Amino acid sequence: MRQFVLYARKAVTSPDFALDDLPGSGGRMDLVARCICNALWLSHAVRRDSCIHIVAYGRPNPPVVISFYGETLRGVSPDERNIAAWIKNALAAKRKNPGITVRTISFQQLIEELASRGAFFYILHEKGRDISTLELKADSVFVLGDHLGLPRNEEKFVARCAHERISLGTSSYLASHCITVLHYELDRRCTWSSR
Amino acid sequence: MRQFVLYARKAVTSPDFALDDLPGSGGRMDLVARCICNALWLSHAVRRDSCIHIVAYGRPNPPVVISFYGETLRGVSPDERNIAAWIKNALAAKRKNPGITVRTISFQQLIEELASRGAFFYILHEKGRDISTLELKADSVFVLGDHLGLPRNEEKFVARCAHERISLGTSSYLASHCITVLHYELDRRCTWSSR
Repeated sequence: MRQFVLYARKAVTSPDFALDDLPGSGGRMDLVARCICNALWLSHAVRRDSCIHIVAYGRPNPPVVISFYGETLRGVSPDERNIAAWIKNALAAKRKNPGITVRTISFQQLIEELASRGAFFYILHEKGRDISTLELKADSVFVLGDHLGLPRNEEKFVARCAHERISLGTSSYLASHCITVLHYELDRRCTWSSR
Repeated sequence: MRQFVLYARKAVTSPDFALDDLPGSGGRMDLVARCICNALWLSHAVRRDSCIHIVAYGRPNPPVVISFYGETLRGVSPDERNIAAWIKNALAAKRKNPGITVRTISFQQLIEELASRGAFFYILHEKGRDISTLELKADSVFVLGDHLGLPRNEEKFVARCAHERISLGTSSYLASHCITVLHYELDRRCTWSSR
């Protein structure tokens, strides 16, 4: 399974944000929704082999980990408002979706959990090894920061596990774009290796 | 300049759509907004060397070409609602933005105009040549269809100009994801060629 972890420093942790103001009242919930869209959607299909964990550190009850699993997700559209509405439902613990979970665990607890299941971590980092020089391992976890970046202490924590710092080149992309590019790189390598 | 042309079969051509319902009342204006975001945004910056033309064929007054120019765009945020609000303003001919134009010309008129300025066209096509086997020309125009695809007669029209059909591999991506991947491929080649 392809897994993504987004550290979302401002994403709110209560359902009282406004769907009409995802950047402001949602604490950049627009960015979060775009990352979820890019992690899980293909044209006319959902990537059943992918999931994304949003680690929300915004007000009022951080941390909260909101996970979207392509394998079991049902009835969600790829637009920002619809994805955010499902996050709102999940935070309010109403209208359950089999593909969405909410847990009050921290970034480090999530990383420990994934590591205990044998995950290999790729940390997106501008000074990392260029992705084109690497063979990417299947069933990996890609760790990304939001517009404010991954805090140094959290990066250090991941770096205690089996990991590699990787870079997508010299351009500085939005987190959501990084996810699209990572899928693209993985898709191409899967195609090559199956030829 | 990197240019993208999106044929948006259902995108509405009047400002009376609801910002709360971009997929429905906007005729997949969510998809349109995501394509604009991916064509023009980097992390904390706008791509000044890029533009995107949305050719809207939805009700009630098609066709309309809405163009977003990174070079002159001001005050727009990358979230779907904000981009859609600017499209609404532009269609209503109020609150001008120097980076947004609206014209009542057709897809074919737009293609003719770009061709007359010497554009080379890349048509995104599942049966096209794999992008990894190509040297991409600078200052090209990439032509994409929306979720319903590019109509066959419009594709034939572009194919009368200097062009190449290209593919991003065997996965079928959202139009907005294709734009991100095209930028990524171009960015990498620019880096290599400047080394």
